[in-house]
Amino acid sequence: MRSFASDNWSGVCPEIMEVLNEVNKDHNPAYGELNDEITESAIAKFKEMFGENTKVFFVYNGTAANVLGIHHLIKSYHAVVAAHSSHINEDECGAPEKISGSKIYTVDTFSGKITPDDVKPFLKSLGFQHHSQPKLISISQVTEKGTVYDVTEIKELADFAHANGMFLHVDGARIANAAVSLGVDFKTMITDTGVDVLSFGGTKNGLMFGEAVVFPDGAKARDFEYLRKQNMQLHSKMRYIAAQFDRYLTGGLWKKNASQANNAAKLLESQLKKTGFVKITREVRANGVFAILPAEIIEKLREKYYFHIWDSSTHEVRLMCSWDTTEEDINGFISLLRMLVP
Amino acid sequence: MRSFASDNWSGVCPEIMEVLNEVNKDHNPAYGELNDEITESAIAKFKEMFGENTKVFFVYNGTAANVLGIHHLIKSYHAVVAAHSSHINEDECGAPEKISGSKIYTVDTFSGKITPDDVKPFLKSLGFQHHSQPKLISISQVTEKGTVYDVTEIKELADFAHANGMFLHVDGARIANAAVSLGVDFKTMITDTGVDVLSFGGTKNGLMFGEAVVFPDGAKARDFEYLRKQNMQLHSKMRYIAAQFDRYLTGGLWKKNASQANNAAKLLESQLKKTGFVKITREVRANGVFAILPAEIIEKLREKYYFHIWDSSTHEVRLMCSWDTTEEDINGFISLLRMLVP
Amino acid sequence: MRSFASDNWSGVCPEIMEVLNEVNKDHNPAYGELNDEITESAIAKFKEMFGENTKVFFVYNGTAANVLGIHHLIKSYHAVVAAHSSHINEDECGAPEKISGSKIYTVDTFSGKITPDDVKPFLKSLGFQHHSQPKLISISQVTEKGTVYDVTEIKELADFAHANGMFLHVDGARIANAAVSLGVDFKTMITDTGVDVLSFGGTKNGLMFGEAVVFPDGAKARDFEYLRKQNMQLHSKMRYIAAQFDRYLTGGLWKKNASQANNAAKLLESQLKKTGFVKITREVRANGVFAILPAEIIEKLREKYYFHIWDSSTHEVRLMCSWDTTEEDINGFISLLRMLVP
Amino acid sequence: MRSFASDNWSGVCPEIMEVLNEVNKDHNPAYGELNDEITESAIAKFKEMFGENTKVFFVYNGTAANVLGIHHLIKSYHAVVAAHSSHINEDECGAPEKISGSKIYTVDTFSGKITPDDVKPFLKSLGFQHHSQPKLISISQVTEKGTVYDVTEIKELADFAHANGMFLHVDGARIANAAVSLGVDFKTMITDTGVDVLSFGGTKNGLMFGEAVVFPDGAKARDFEYLRKQNMQLHSKMRYIAAQFDRYLTGGLWKKNASQANNAAKLLESQLKKTGFVKITREVRANGVFAILPAEIIEKLREKYYFHIWDSSTHEVRLMCSWDTTEEDINGFISLLRMLVP
Repeated sequence: MRSFASDNWSGVCPEIMEVLNEVNKDHNPAYGELNDEITESAIAKFKEMFGENTKVFFVYNGTAANVLGIHHLIKSYHAVVAAHSSHINEDECGAPEKISGSKIYTVDTFSGKITPDDVKPFLKSLGFQHHSQPKLISISQVTEKGTVYDVTEIKELADFAHANGMFLHVDGARIANAAVSLGVDFKTMITDTGVDVLSFGGTKNGLMFGEAVVFPDGAKARDFEYLRKQNMQLHSKMRYIAAQFDRYLTGGLWKKNASQANNAAKLLESQLKKTGFVKITREVRANGVFAILPAEIIEKLREKYYFHIWDSSTHEVRLMCSWDTTEEDINGFISLLRMLVP
Repeated sequence: MRSFASDNWSGVCPEIMEVLNEVNKDHNPAYGELNDEITESAIAKFKEMFGENTKVFFVYNGTAANVLGIHHLIKSYHAVVAAHSSHINEDECGAPEKISGSKIYTVDTFSGKITPDDVKPFLKSLGFQHHSQPKLISISQVTEKGTVYDVTEIKELADFAHANGMFLHVDGARIANAAVSLGVDFKTMITDTGVDVLSFGGTKNGLMFGEAVVFPDGAKARDFEYLRKQNMQLHSKMRYIAAQFDRYLTGGLWKKNASQANNAAKLLESQLKKTGFVKITREVRANGVFAILPAEIIEKLREKYYFHIWDSSTHEVRLMCSWDTTEEDINGFISLLRMLVP
Repeated sequence: MRSFASDNWSGVCPEIMEVLNEVNKDHNPAYGELNDEITESAIAKFKEMFGENTKVFFVYNGTAANVLGIHHLIKSYHAVVAAHSSHINEDECGAPEKISGSKIYTVDTFSGKITPDDVKPFLKSLGFQHHSQPKLISISQVTEKGTVYDVTEIKELADFAHANGMFLHVDGARIANAAVSLGVDFKTMITDTGVDVLSFGGTKNGLMFGEAVVFPDGAKARDFEYLRKQNMQLHSKMRYIAAQFDRYLTGGLWKKNASQANNAAKLLESQLKKTGFVKITREVRANGVFAILPAEIIEKLREKYYFHIWDSSTHEVRLMCSWDTTEEDINGFISLLRMLVP
Repeated sequence: MRSFASDNWSGVCPEIMEVLNEVNKDHNPAYGELNDEITESAIAKFKEMFGENTKVFFVYNGTAANVLGIHHLIKSYHAVVAAHSSHINEDECGAPEKISGSKIYTVDTFSGKITPDDVKPFLKSLGFQHHSQPKLISISQVTEKGTVYDVTEIKELADFAHANGMFLHVDGARIANAAVSLGVDFKTMITDTGVDVLSFGGTKNGLMFGEAVVFPDGAKARDFEYLRKQNMQLHSKMRYIAAQFDRYLTGGLWKKNASQANNAAKLLESQLKKTGFVKITREVRANGVFAILPAEIIEKLREKYYFHIWDSSTHEVRLMCSWDTTEEDINGFISLLRMLVP
């Protein structure tokens, strides 16, 4: 089966699968404890990528990375400011509210991106005891709309947050795709801009499971290990997450995978445009393409290449490319599309 | 490295690793949705094992299986009754309290096992609005002390629970070792006794990650999928958990692995006894051996074969065997032990 | 000091103060337990008002009545649908999210009122495990904008809620003002329309402290007493809340107080209109008047008669009348206003 | 009705009732905001009593004072160490667990008092990520067993707590009775010993409602106002709580009331001893008397003078005196007791 449903429909990339097989021998300290070498090695790779002061913690999935990163930095009477379309607001079944007890103030935005000006109105609540106190800005990089924040935009948000006693969280489920899109490394995009906590995704870019909560300033990570354990996110056979990240951050694997996905999206975009009857609705910056397709062929097309309908009223669909999306996939999709629209 | 630290220090058994490699191709619906075949197949295996009415949900780890199984059945003003030594009380960093908001009433017990008579005193709180209302009994099978409940003991607890409007939860992190120890199948031990929810462990018996929350009476599982998602336990690339369980429940793999672990523990027990200077402190029913070792050799022994000190005041240690523990491991351990005690 | 700030700036009405003095003698069972006569009498009054199947629980304040009424009926993975301007969304510092763990889906509305059509779009989330499941509609009667739902509008919402497996909650912090405005009794407005749970306010209409959580269908109240206690809302000297409500529901005291407040608002509205330079911005249905005042006189006016600025960009203010607002108050306010605007 | 059930069965003392009547006029800022004079005056009294750095927050009841004081100082992965018999562990329906998400480690103790030696064993969990981290010691002064900590004992606990990175909380539901018993002022007992947060009770000593959360070092109180509001404990008509505390701390009213209660207990103790057939089971230090009564007369005695049976197996009962307990009450009780035991 081939699809454009989501980058989590794809499998595990060969390099990651190989390393999982490799580390599968003998005994290893559980929970990454007792200076487990595999875990230590992966942590060292993160320090290389994000700077020496970095602290990193492995959790199971992106929901947990987002929720716990936020939960760690704020109290229940604080509020998160985020795009209405953000994953934490729309697609985590209320996990941030349940787990952290806090509220989300949302910003309506077509692009999926927010700016300091979007956050400002919420500052009126500061000091008013009847209102949740805005304390953290959360952005997605890549956004849920396929758009990407430029480095300067992230820095502006971080500066604004800090100037107002707030934190900046980045949901980086597709952070590799963003880095490739911007042509920058993680340190430039995250550490140097002042991001306080990052959900560093891997699953959508070729890993089997596991995400990382990254604190570029490790001092802010104090006691996070207890929060992780209490919130059911400490893996016993830690080596199997650690080894994946160790490999992922070696030899540019993350970049190779993300590049393939982003390039596929670019190719798909251009092929869709060429049809003449497909409208691209949002700027294609990473691995997602949003487009309006002829209504009557959508179901037929989905039978062969599954994808998500974004807005059923306008027939806008989301076509997501992955580390394993091939030219053949795209050609097959476009051929079928053309065939269905005579 | 070889150890007797814990069954989660061992790796993934070859059969499971093989199936992980096998399913690693093409695209697959995320989250087990859209009737993902691999997930459906695994679910079918659980129904074979536990009966047709069973509902099963895959989560990431044992903490989550325990906490969410309990959380689902009770309200925050309810209380869980459990052994003081239970994992949910002692080793989950307060996860049950945080996630479910409920309280744990604990029973002191040397064996790690509790009986209806242990629970009875807590029933006095029923109907008294100032006390958390006892609503669920939680037992571990195998217990944290290496002991095992007989089938009739489980049934008595389930009957007692139901007669008092309560539920019975089983923490089955080592449920396969218990089944092998008792020589019964899961249906006999769990479904037929009336257990309401089971944390079905796999990680400690050869899996890489993933545990299953099993409701033998599926009607009690209603809406559990939302609880799982909100509590950060829904895996996107679900096939990699499902495939493991599918294989685990095929051809008696669970039994093979657990048998090797249990047999190793029996061998270890008898070898320890033969030394003449080691006291076995608790009945060896599954894969754990509790013993008092000569104080002065413990650290030396741990350097080569790591294990946990259970009670530093009495020098009681826990030696845990795994699916991969070999005769060679045991012989090596015993030899070193004998060498260290001249 | 006289003000139009809020109906909770006023004191306790004489009849309530009198009864507090009266019941202040001898010993009385704490917590309303052991069939405390004062508590039983107050409960009986609620049954008279709302019907024989009613269950009522006294709590300390409106936040608690709202949050616990909602918390009792839904699970953490459910969502409340409410007006964005609702008190539970805007003015309780995130209490619903923290205490119940659930999410609020908000509807933008100028009038503060919502309709079934506003709720419908959220039903798309039903059955989708990634979204909080809409399970309860919460409305305010009187709304935060001073508007009032007609009885038929409440019934339509209740019918819609029930047809979709949802509940209807009413924040009745000013329920007496609504009843007077509509000229109906509580049973007609709440029980007969099918409201599932009501926060029955008293503090804003002449009580010292205490609100009541009313379940017209008592079967839905099961175990609420434990929720109340665990959430820190069980008063020990219960007689002092119970006696207030007992008196409040006797001889139409609630109606007398609310009528005075509503009439004062009507008078204030007409006097404001007569000035020629004040714009009434929202329909005056109960005891609140929203109006645009000349910007330059607002602060001066507030020095003598404090009131809240609703929208500083448009100079819309809220003038709230209370059970103790007199003609003299209004005349004084209008005189000053006219004096300030030459 | 007269009773020895609990000090919350008694009413409001005349001085407090009088002040409630007095402040009941005109309008007053809600929530204690805008420098409400009555609230400011009460706060000033607390500063007089506890020192200039004190911050105090009024809440509704003792459960809230305890839970929020603790919740404010710790995180969910922390643990409270307390006597098993403490109110927070036994009589708040799991409120601390639900609201703060944390765990309680309990100490078994006959006297109701704990010492640094009781806390020490829990320190082993420090730094071990699988265990809730002990972070706060909570004691009750007076304890639930009627005993009282000496000032030096409190200081030892505070010093021990601080030396181990922990806090000390005092549940002072009967703090006035303890102060009278020890013959010390609050500053000596609480501020000078280093207590971090105190639940300052009033309801059990003559108030109608309201308790105070006192931080002798106000710096530790930062943002508590949001915690209070979010947890449903901010009273709108704040003057009615503030005025009570203002009066309570004026002219030694707290001392007068507590003295009467303590003296009554002493008298009751001596009269019970004189009977020859009643055994006093615990030291009488404040206003509670624990005694073993002849089993066969307990019910008869309770019909006239209700009291709580503490341990039905030994026929130990608790006789609680109050600010309003008179010699006549005690004489009547003793007479009936003697009459029932021929």
